Amino acid sequence: MSYPVRPIGHVRSALRDPAQAPRQGDEGAPRARVVIEPAFARGMADLQSGTEVVVLTWLHLARRDELVTRPRDDPARPERGVFSTRSPHRPNPIGLHRVRIVAISGNEIEVTGLEAVDGTPVVDVKPVLRGLAER
Amino acid sequence: MSYPVRPIGHVRSALRDPAQAPRQGDEGAPRARVVIEPAFARGMADLQSGTEVVVLTWLHLARRDELVTRPRDDPARPERGVFSTRSPHRPNPIGLHRVRIVAISGNEIEVTGLEAVDGTPVVDVKPVLRGLAER
Repeated sequence: MSYPVRPIGHVRSALRDPAQAPRQGDEGAPRARVVIEPAFARGMADLQSGTEVVVLTWLHLARRDELVTRPRDDPARPERGVFSTRSPHRPNPIGLHRVRIVAISGNEIEVTGLEAVDGTPVVDVKPVLRGLAER
Repeated sequence: MSYPVRPIGHVRSALRDPAQAPRQGDEGAPRARVVIEPAFARGMADLQSGTEVVVLTWLHLARRDELVTRPRDDPARPERGVFSTRSPHRPNPIGLHRVRIVAISGNEIEVTGLEAVDGTPVVDVKPVLRGLAER
């Protein structure tokens, strides 16, 4: 049993190599663009520059067969179950990225804080979780 | 082009009808259980009672062909692009649920604050986003 996730767009970024991607968006990811497929562009209505959103990606380079992982591949750290980590290598490699919109132009959203490599499929854009932002 | 999302488990809840589900977890969702498939249970290692996690679901009852929506189906509200809303009806109906773990027993995680109906597929469990929790 599975459900098909269909990309709504892709990341365009100077980041090319997953090994060089910052592990979290606040560790220095450069500006990047989320390019939405024209067929989905109507869904972008009401997105606003200056606001934060959560971008969901499909981490297409990740392995899906790992259930335990060693954080940051550091042999000094103990293995952990993947569901208590943010490892990209997990059964469904969905990335959550809190980013700030700095500009919107046509079907392109320019953002800061997006740690995904160039070409990463984007599967959703959502408001920041209520309760995460407001509490 | 699509990627197969494979459920790692399911929600067990007294909530049966999407129309009766609270719209956000903090509006009164009852306790629920996330039942992880045995094949994925090793990934639960290191999850801890008393902590908050983000549960990702596949909102299997949602429509996928909506790009604009009227929040809470209220005719007095203007339509909005779905990517600036948390409507379940969106191209990839992935739900994000910040919940608190209240107990773990075998392959079952008992949580509070989960607004998904009984039987909703669970596709991932992650730590609360850094930057959402700590800022």
